[in-house]
Amino acid sequence: METIRRTKISDLPQCKFGDQVSVKGWVRTRRGNKQVSFIALNDGSTINNIQIVADIEKFGEDNLKPITTGACIHVIGKYVESQGKGQNGEIQATEIEIYGTADAQEYPLQKKGHSLEFLREIAHLRPRTNTFGAIFRMRHHMSYAIHKYFNDHGFFYLHTPIITASDAEGAGSMFQATTLDFNNLPRTENGKIDYSQDFFGRQTNMTVSGQLEGELGAMALGAVYTFGPTFRAENSNTPRHLAEFWMIEPEVAFYDIHDNMDLAEDFLKYLIRYALDNCKEDLAFLNEMYDKELIERLEFVLSNDFVRLTYTEGVKILEESGHKFEFPVYWGADLQSEHERYLVEKHFKRPVIMTDYPKEIKSFYMKQNEDGKTVRGMDVLFPKIGEIIGGSEREADYDKLMERIKETGMNTDPIWWYLETRKFGTAPHAGFGLGFERLMLFVTGMLNIRDVIPFPRTPKNAEF
Amino acid sequence: METIRRTKISDLPQCKFGDQVSVKGWVRTRRGNKQVSFIALNDGSTINNIQIVADIEKFGEDNLKPITTGACIHVIGKYVESQGKGQNGEIQATEIEIYGTADAQEYPLQKKGHSLEFLREIAHLRPRTNTFGAIFRMRHHMSYAIHKYFNDHGFFYLHTPIITASDAEGAGSMFQATTLDFNNLPRTENGKIDYSQDFFGRQTNMTVSGQLEGELGAMALGAVYTFGPTFRAENSNTPRHLAEFWMIEPEVAFYDIHDNMDLAEDFLKYLIRYALDNCKEDLAFLNEMYDKELIERLEFVLSNDFVRLTYTEGVKILEESGHKFEFPVYWGADLQSEHERYLVEKHFKRPVIMTDYPKEIKSFYMKQNEDGKTVRGMDVLFPKIGEIIGGSEREADYDKLMERIKETGMNTDPIWWYLETRKFGTAPHAGFGLGFERLMLFVTGMLNIRDVIPFPRTPKNAEF
Repeated sequence: METIRRTKISDLPQCKFGDQVSVKGWVRTRRGNKQVSFIALNDGSTINNIQIVADIEKFGEDNLKPITTGACIHVIGKYVESQGKGQNGEIQATEIEIYGTADAQEYPLQKKGHSLEFLREIAHLRPRTNTFGAIFRMRHHMSYAIHKYFNDHGFFYLHTPIITASDAEGAGSMFQATTLDFNNLPRTENGKIDYSQDFFGRQTNMTVSGQLEGELGAMALGAVYTFGPTFRAENSNTPRHLAEFWMIEPEVAFYDIHDNMDLAEDFLKYLIRYALDNCKEDLAFLNEMYDKELIERLEFVLSNDFVRLTYTEGVKILEESGHKFEFPVYWGADLQSEHERYLVEKHFKRPVIMTDYPKEIKSFYMKQNEDGKTVRGMDVLFPKIGEIIGGSEREADYDKLMERIKETGMNTDPIWWYLETRKFGTAPHAGFGLGFERLMLFVTGMLNIRDVIPFPRTPKNAEF
Repeated sequence: METIRRTKISDLPQCKFGDQVSVKGWVRTRRGNKQVSFIALNDGSTINNIQIVADIEKFGEDNLKPITTGACIHVIGKYVESQGKGQNGEIQATEIEIYGTADAQEYPLQKKGHSLEFLREIAHLRPRTNTFGAIFRMRHHMSYAIHKYFNDHGFFYLHTPIITASDAEGAGSMFQATTLDFNNLPRTENGKIDYSQDFFGRQTNMTVSGQLEGELGAMALGAVYTFGPTFRAENSNTPRHLAEFWMIEPEVAFYDIHDNMDLAEDFLKYLIRYALDNCKEDLAFLNEMYDKELIERLEFVLSNDFVRLTYTEGVKILEESGHKFEFPVYWGADLQSEHERYLVEKHFKRPVIMTDYPKEIKSFYMKQNEDGKTVRGMDVLFPKIGEIIGGSEREADYDKLMERIKETGMNTDPIWWYLETRKFGTAPHAGFGLGFERLMLFVTGMLNIRDVIPFPRTPKNAEF
């Protein structure tokens, strides 16, 4: 083969017709007639294939035979204007090298469409499909947009620990991280597991949230964010739950709940705008194939202010709606997805930020309102998704925080360091958590959270 | 207090003298005389404090008394040209609000310098010091530079799983992730632990590398990178080891080892250039306080090509050096840090990329050379740090890969999906891993890896 610098398929439109080019990629299809073979080649850089035109007499029919769906090839040829409609250019092949074949009897990704369920079982190959290529390219662009937004706004990325001896929420089931030998568990004199012999000298778990450490960062660096994996060992086999997922948690000193709401709304709109601007072709594909209202829905969110109302106001609307809900609505109830979606999709027809929830249904660290009943929590509720962000202004007063902790019966020993932030130069501050896969569901229009993360972890499934 | 939009201290230089400004932050020091108090205030946005000048008669001595080191305050005043040297501006306070005090008897970060060892014990407060403020701001900028580099070069960020049922290296000690009840471990009929009852229905661990999944991504999307936490359960209590650390792993289809070396060198130089361009003040501080050759060393790396040589050539140089090493040097030996540093610091006086190692000391997945003895591995060796990057061209040939796997005695069951990439459209590809904290040591000049990650995880330590 001649040595010409490879051009990514995404960069081909910048080539001139008549240029000699080198492309490398995987064969999506090969079809043709007795004179000529048409190979649709994709290299993952874009959803668009490039059409390779191979003269059968030139290459020999037997030499082209191994070029079946899934094979990897290197093509050198002339980039020319395409004869077919809807394509800009194609390549008239002068040389073809086969890197790797894909036995048509064995290779599972043949031309025909596959169910999303089947593709989950071959998660090692599904990124080679149009659908998952689009989703994972978008996942990249959304990740980058998150970092860019915070960097441009003066936030510092804080790597909070994965292995932890505390439980941020006082709730969530956790995975234990351990090096103890299960066949020879060390025990103390009174028969309990002797965690002093575990790797960290104590029982440790995989984090459910970086918030508590995020607050430490905010109380020093001013504005920080986390973006990392978090874990829930909940035995929930639903399209909305993962045991391992990625979360973004900004935390900002001197922010009150209103600043926090402004940040959440501006941030989400920035991300959606970024998707519309930077993922046009992938979005067009997903819109066409999976969700005809996807792009319209993204643009709708951009063009409207989010409704802001209190939990108390929200409950009143629900109570007076006359709508029959599966779960009863009353002041004090933890609102269900059906209630949230009624407000967003039926009543307001816009994203909603709900605030000031009853303290009993929210975490210990939320700022207490003067009514003695509610706290400065806030949830951002989205169409189709429900809660996409949960956050709050934090309780900055040491005595009030300790009082609430006592009410809940929490053990303060593992979070002595957290409590010290309220003793030493405490300050108003606020933050929130965005579930990255919830965002991905929203921007891709996919319905199952297993389809927006490369290698989903769910009960009984840690393959790949 | 009046309501004026808060200005971050890093943004003050953009204000005009005479402007009324509002700043919020933590008191570093307060000193003064009978007429006036000088408060050095820092809000984490920059290493620079802003000096607040408070007229004692105006505010009253008793009201200023609680404003001690560590207290958090809100100041409104006039931004004026500073009388002191080396400062651009200061604020003549008109209003001061105290958000939180810090009892001088209890607050551990008093004026005097503290040892890095002591500061590790108060990792929840150390980001409030000049040193750790600088380090963690730089950690942000380096993280962002990594994402920006790859995004600008058409790589896609791939979130590889943390919980895994395979061991990428066939080596590294791992943490087990489990929900089994240690006091009631399920057992099979023949007395073994019954992992079918664990959360994932099998034994799972915390990943040591995302490479194998990264290769899946590269063989579909072309060029990907990971940037996430990885884990080693090695009982190594040294200044170079962490049980939890962050790693960056690019993986690129159609790259050979030369492309891989070019990428590694260009990438590292980009990051160092980014630090010099974007972290000037923090670097100047670290250069002054910890390592007088830091900036010079960073600039030196930028201005020189990395030396590229084979392991065989490197061993020959070491053997002929006449230098007395603690560990003997011979062809086949796994080079020690002393050998690597001799080549980099003494012999070449430049960063070195060493390639083509004996297959016995490298991982199973590296491309085998035709000599039958060596593989296409590559390590990038840096002054002071030693190995900062390890990578390779990967073995793309299914039969050769299987042969090597058999030689090593590995179990292929958990990585059936990895092997399929060599069956279905295999392609030349290459990649490497950069230990993020190694990079951070290099760009900050710090000597202990515990000082470049916010909350280090080491044997017997999972505090915070």
